[in-house]
Amino acid sequence: MNSGMPLAGTDVGFIGLGLMGRPMSLNLLAAGARVIVHSRSPDPVQELAEAGAVPVSSPASVAAKADTVITMLPDTPAVETVLLGTGGVVEGLKPGSLVIDMGTTGVMATRDFAAAIEKAGGAYVDAPVSGGTIGAGDGTLVIMAGGSGEAVARARAIFGVLGSRATHVGAVGTGQVAKAANQVIVGLNIGAVAEALTLAAKAGADPAKVREALRGGFADSRILEVHGQRMVDGDFRPGGKVTTQFKDLTQALELAAELGFSLPATALNRDLYARLIEAGHGDLDHSALIKAIAED
Amino acid sequence: MNSGMPLAGTDVGFIGLGLMGRPMSLNLLAAGARVIVHSRSPDPVQELAEAGAVPVSSPASVAAKADTVITMLPDTPAVETVLLGTGGVVEGLKPGSLVIDMGTTGVMATRDFAAAIEKAGGAYVDAPVSGGTIGAGDGTLVIMAGGSGEAVARARAIFGVLGSRATHVGAVGTGQVAKAANQVIVGLNIGAVAEALTLAAKAGADPAKVREALRGGFADSRILEVHGQRMVDGDFRPGGKVTTQFKDLTQALELAAELGFSLPATALNRDLYARLIEAGHGDLDHSALIKAIAED
Repeated sequence: MNSGMPLAGTDVGFIGLGLMGRPMSLNLLAAGARVIVHSRSPDPVQELAEAGAVPVSSPASVAAKADTVITMLPDTPAVETVLLGTGGVVEGLKPGSLVIDMGTTGVMATRDFAAAIEKAGGAYVDAPVSGGTIGAGDGTLVIMAGGSGEAVARARAIFGVLGSRATHVGAVGTGQVAKAANQVIVGLNIGAVAEALTLAAKAGADPAKVREALRGGFADSRILEVHGQRMVDGDFRPGGKVTTQFKDLTQALELAAELGFSLPATALNRDLYARLIEAGHGDLDHSALIKAIAED
Repeated sequence: MNSGMPLAGTDVGFIGLGLMGRPMSLNLLAAGARVIVHSRSPDPVQELAEAGAVPVSSPASVAAKADTVITMLPDTPAVETVLLGTGGVVEGLKPGSLVIDMGTTGVMATRDFAAAIEKAGGAYVDAPVSGGTIGAGDGTLVIMAGGSGEAVARARAIFGVLGSRATHVGAVGTGQVAKAANQVIVGLNIGAVAEALTLAAKAGADPAKVREALRGGFADSRILEVHGQRMVDGDFRPGGKVTTQFKDLTQALELAAELGFSLPATALNRDLYARLIEAGHGDLDHSALIKAIAED
């Protein structure tokens, strides 16, 4: 095997060619895989076909042609439709196939989807990611995997192409639990940097200098580094969108509610993101949260 | 000059020998400075004297014997007493001396203290730090400095001994503004990690595995690294105390209130730290905030 072609000779199905799925499937192609793609949007399918992928007309057809099927979809209902709906993955699934959901999907629903795939003779891994479109493009996603040790081991070669790190967290669903925890931290750390830089500016300091002063200390974070810079620049091109952050925090809060406890700072920040959406800023990068603080 | 003794031949006054001041003054001694010390507590004075420092009986005496005077005190009223009270620094200050306040002190009060020192013929730098007792001990504090370019330049040799980075943020007071911003981020990032790890544990994942899975992604931070580990271990020995974090967030909120705006997540987290103090946990490390979330 050529180390530049770690997936040579393998078939990988990929369903969902959005902001994340498009560059991820291109990386799989570049690693030598035969990639079978399906997406509701025609444009990325066309682009992937030109890059060498095989487009098919339904999720069932993807599953019929590949023994590993990756889903990268915007929300839990979309995963349900793609896996279990008419023409869905379960209809075409070959026994022994592996389904890897790399989107951000509800924990409880994930456990249901895994049961349905296992009933159809497949194995299921939930493997949501952090790192955004940058990480998707350069193959440096951080992957949080839930599933049996055997199933996660089978996914490792693909994870190695798509990400810089993949951690096996635990049983099916725990990848999504880790992603929910990730989104809570990301969403709240953005809120923390937004309040800190607002305080700095209003108290007469240069936010760019303050951000620089804080690097390397206990306040340092990937959010201060990346999103703090976006706030200083006032450059809110996504990246991760306000609407996505709102959805992810809502999902974390619903999970907490189902389990009978509250997450007060998560709830407060979710409401701040909601205010941004109401103000028409839903498609901006989530670092635009500073607008909800600074313009209060 | 010996590079191991960058402060050889210099006199440095040090007032306040608590958890932070004690190791910092030992580092100044180790760098070759003649260190003149004063503290309300006799034990650290005794220890510093044994290590070669010169103990004196008042802040005025420190100022009379050293042309650079560092204060490292617990709060703004203590700084006021030490600088402006009876037997205070101003009484002994030699013209041309430099006063460096490295504690966390109110922004408005800092501007007043600087004016008083300048009126007495001295220069003033506010240079609060991040990095806690670990950074104080090994000389890796992150220093945020406010003051004139000339005054900050004079403090550089000392900063080089006490810290790994010193950023000149702007005019007098902006060091304290940066520290307030720092504390907002630290306090809120602890809250974010506390909610995320609570969610992980209650949703059936191993918080240690989740913390590990999140390292390197957008959720990564010094707080996830250091305080996340303390939460996983349930080891809440300080480090930075809950009472200090509560004081710092209160100070940030007071500054915002004086300037006429609100910091909603800072206010919410301040209340969570207050709840910990009421429950008798004020002397624990601030990472104990997870108790206020998990045991809610």
